[in-house]
Amino acid sequence: MRRRATARKALPLAKVYGLLEPGPVVLLSTLGAGRPNAMAMSWHTMLEFEPPLVGCVVSDRNHSFAALKSTRECVLCIPTARLAKQVVGCGNTSGARTDKFAKFGLTPQPARLVRAPLIAECYANLECRVADTRMVRKYCLFVLEVVQAWIDPRVKRPRTLHHLGWGEFMIAGRHLRVPSRMR
Amino acid sequence: MRRRATARKALPLAKVYGLLEPGPVVLLSTLGAGRPNAMAMSWHTMLEFEPPLVGCVVSDRNHSFAALKSTRECVLCIPTARLAKQVVGCGNTSGARTDKFAKFGLTPQPARLVRAPLIAECYANLECRVADTRMVRKYCLFVLEVVQAWIDPRVKRPRTLHHLGWGEFMIAGRHLRVPSRMR
Repeated sequence: MRRRATARKALPLAKVYGLLEPGPVVLLSTLGAGRPNAMAMSWHTMLEFEPPLVGCVVSDRNHSFAALKSTRECVLCIPTARLAKQVVGCGNTSGARTDKFAKFGLTPQPARLVRAPLIAECYANLECRVADTRMVRKYCLFVLEVVQAWIDPRVKRPRTLHHLGWGEFMIAGRHLRVPSRMR
Repeated sequence: MRRRATARKALPLAKVYGLLEPGPVVLLSTLGAGRPNAMAMSWHTMLEFEPPLVGCVVSDRNHSFAALKSTRECVLCIPTARLAKQVVGCGNTSGARTDKFAKFGLTPQPARLVRAPLIAECYANLECRVADTRMVRKYCLFVLEVVQAWIDPRVKRPRTLHHLGWGEFMIAGRHLRVPSRMR
């Protein structure tokens, strides 16, 4: 774990969109009633570049819902393909009955600005505060503000997971660059 | 074009989320003042499985904003990597000054339930109606309901584009399946 912690580097907040815009599965980490929990989540979108705002759907059937709503803090942790089994494990169990960090061998680490933990095994960790809950009642849509971003600078081409349904994932493939002025 | 039109097949609405959840760049087609237009968009998320609801950000600086707001209809057209230049072209020009369909060789085709056109060259086309505009003022976030979905059944593993910023894209790579009960 020390090696991972040493490799972690702050990412300027203006660059956060580039991590989420491609649509990876994330693990949403929370700390409710003193216990860390993690859920798999694919329903998220950027809402603003800077400060980075993220809209994400956390169903009120998820154990994480209450923790997110009451603590108003979380971390969006981005795994790569080598964590596929852990991601599916987190998606198929409930934090109400399972200590997912223990069960799936995920390592919680202290964040800088929020109490929810980073996940050491994830190549990127985005500390977030809930910025707007007005769409929660109708769509379970939380607006998060990313307040601190961390990345493992050794990971140049993260093999992120993109969920197609029922445990089938597309893994991030090769890159293509076209001259563009689109941020 | 006839070959494409023939190959188009209705996709059950319950399966729509599997197209958008992985996070592809889409072209948002609108018909404002009788003229079709298309913009590149990556900021979208599923909000509900069925009927499929999609949240998407269309900035009020985009020419498409007025058309979407006034007609309350659009099509989410999903391109593959062979359309990368056209996607970037659409993203770097404004429909206010450019007929993008003509300029980038995109073929508009009649939709079934909305007036905005399908794009023949896209492997999937999702006809949408605007379902909620309450988040437009603050976040430029439109809630769309997909009312008809079309797919080219010949495309089994679409090489979708996932935008990383400034014209750099990740192209959908190989698939991985992990036993899961996660829809």
